[in-house]
Amino acid sequence: MPDSDKIAAATKAQQTAEAVAAALFARDAAAQGLGILLLEVRPGFARMAMTVRPNMLNAHDICHGGFTFALADTTFAYACNNRNHVTVAAGCDIIYPAAGRLGDVLTAVAEERHLRGRSGVYDITVTSQSGEVVALMRGQSRRIEGKNVPDL
Amino acid sequence: MPDSDKIAAATKAQQTAEAVAAALFARDAAAQGLGILLLEVRPGFARMAMTVRPNMLNAHDICHGGFTFALADTTFAYACNNRNHVTVAAGCDIIYPAAGRLGDVLTAVAEERHLRGRSGVYDITVTSQSGEVVALMRGQSRRIEGKNVPDL
Amino acid sequence: MPDSDKIAAATKAQQTAEAVAAALFARDAAAQGLGILLLEVRPGFARMAMTVRPNMLNAHDICHGGFTFALADTTFAYACNNRNHVTVAAGCDIIYPAAGRLGDVLTAVAEERHLRGRSGVYDITVTSQSGEVVALMRGQSRRIEGKNVPDL
Amino acid sequence: MPDSDKIAAATKAQQTAEAVAAALFARDAAAQGLGILLLEVRPGFARMAMTVRPNMLNAHDICHGGFTFALADTTFAYACNNRNHVTVAAGCDIIYPAAGRLGDVLTAVAEERHLRGRSGVYDITVTSQSGEVVALMRGQSRRIEGKNVPDL
Repeated sequence: MPDSDKIAAATKAQQTAEAVAAALFARDAAAQGLGILLLEVRPGFARMAMTVRPNMLNAHDICHGGFTFALADTTFAYACNNRNHVTVAAGCDIIYPAAGRLGDVLTAVAEERHLRGRSGVYDITVTSQSGEVVALMRGQSRRIEGKNVPDL
Repeated sequence: MPDSDKIAAATKAQQTAEAVAAALFARDAAAQGLGILLLEVRPGFARMAMTVRPNMLNAHDICHGGFTFALADTTFAYACNNRNHVTVAAGCDIIYPAAGRLGDVLTAVAEERHLRGRSGVYDITVTSQSGEVVALMRGQSRRIEGKNVPDL
Repeated sequence: MPDSDKIAAATKAQQTAEAVAAALFARDAAAQGLGILLLEVRPGFARMAMTVRPNMLNAHDICHGGFTFALADTTFAYACNNRNHVTVAAGCDIIYPAAGRLGDVLTAVAEERHLRGRSGVYDITVTSQSGEVVALMRGQSRRIEGKNVPDL
Repeated sequence: MPDSDKIAAATKAQQTAEAVAAALFARDAAAQGLGILLLEVRPGFARMAMTVRPNMLNAHDICHGGFTFALADTTFAYACNNRNHVTVAAGCDIIYPAAGRLGDVLTAVAEERHLRGRSGVYDITVTSQSGEVVALMRGQSRRIEGKNVPDL
C-alpha cells in the first residue's frame, strides 16, 4: 500500500472511532448519569474519567467496586466498539490494588491486547489523580451483528 | 458440642449476620442509591435485588454491565462481611450469559464456596424475574482488621 | 413426556456420556501420560483423579500449578464434551487455596453451572485425599462443529 | 541517588534475578521434565520456551491446555520470584485465542504489571514460532516469608 493510502486508511479509522464514540455517548444514559467523561478515543483504545461522588461510597466509606467497575467497563466498551462493529463484553475480571475515595478523579485507559476474528481481549487500567492504580480489568469482547453508526 | 450449644451458636451467627447486614445497609449510600433491596442474609450468604432503571441502560439499550456488576458485588460484600470481620474484595470475574433490560427485577444470590484463614471464595448468580441467568460472578475476599459492628 | 420416555432419554444421555469419555480417554496422550484416572462421568459432569509425582514438583517442592491445572482442565473437558458436541475451553480462571504435595491423590469434580446455546460455564473443584480444597477453577466452554463419537 | 549508585543497584538486581532463576531451575523437576527452557530473566520479567511433544496432545490432537498453562505459569513464577522474595501464585486466569500443535515451539513472556506490598499482577503472553498468540494469562502473586537464595 502506498503511504498516501495508509494515511487515508488511518485517518478514516480515527474518524470512525470518534464518530462511534460520540454516537454511543449521546445515547449512553448510564455513562452520562455517572458523570463519566470521554477524554480520548483511537482505534481499539479509549480513555475516560469519573469523579467519585458521595452516592458512590459503600459502607466502608470507599468507592463501591461496582462504580470503579462501571468506569472500567464503559471505557472497555468504547475501545472495543469503535471500529464500528457492535461488540459486547463476554466476560471480565477485575483486581483492586487500591480503593477510590470521595472526590478522587479516576481515569481509565482501555487498550486492545488481542483481536482475532470476532473475539478480542482488552486491558483496562484505572488510576487515581495521584497515579495510584485503583483497578486492573481484563475484558473479553465478542463482536455481534450490526454497525454502531452508518459507515463513513 | 451438645445440641443445645449448636443451636445457640447457629442462632448467634444468624443474629450477627442480620445485625451486620442492617448496619452496613444503613450507611451504604451506593446500594441505597441504586435501589438495591436486601432480601435475605445468612452466615456467608446474601440475597439482594435491584430493578433496572432507565439511567442504567447503555448505548445498546441494555443494562450497563457495571450496574449488574454493582448488584452482584454488593451481594458478595454482604455475604462475606456478615460473620462480622471487615472483609474486602480482592478481585472478581464476571460472565454475562444474558443482558438485563429496562424494568427487569434482577436478583443476586451470593454463596460461600470456600473460606480458609483470611481468604474466601464466593459465587454470585444474578437472575432475572423469569429465571434467566444474567451474570455469574466469582469473587475472592480478603479479611482485614476490624469488626463491622460491636460483637453481639 | 411420559415417564418411560424420560427414562429412555436419561439412559441414552448417560450412555452417550460414557461412550464419549471412553473414546476421548483412549486417544488422550496427555491425560494418560499424567496418570489421570477417569472415575465417573454423567451428562455435564466428570470426576477424575491424579497422584502427584516427583516430576510434578516445582522449585518450592509443591505440586506445580500447571499440573493441578491440567487435572482440573482435563476434568472440565470431559464434562463439557460428554453431550457429544466437540467443545473447547474459551478461558478459565483458577484459585489455589492450598498446594498439592508429593504423593497426594488429587480428585477433580467438574459440574455444569450454566449452558446456553454454544456457551457453557463449569465449576471444577480439586481436593486432596484429606478433603482439603487445592484448587477452584471456573471454565468457559464453547461448542464448535463436530461430534466426539458417532451418535448412539 | 547518583548515577553510579543507580547503575550498581540495577546491576545487583539483575545479578539477583539471574541467581534466583538459576537456583530455582536447578531444583524445578516439573519445568525440566516438560523440557522448558529459560531464555531470559530481568527483575520482574522472564521469558521461557517449550516444544509441544506428542504426550502433550489431548484427544482433539491439540496441545492440552494444561501444558500451555504450565509453561505460562512457570514463566510467571520465574518473573515474580526473581527479586528473591519467595512468592506464590494466588490465582490466574487464562484465555486461549489459538491452540498449540505438535512440534510448535511456544514462547512465554511474563511482565510485571503491578506490584504493591506483597501483591503483584503479571501478564503472561504465549506465542508460537509464527507469532500467533496461543494464550494470554494474568496472574496474581503473593509474597510469603523467605528468600529463594541467600542475598547477594
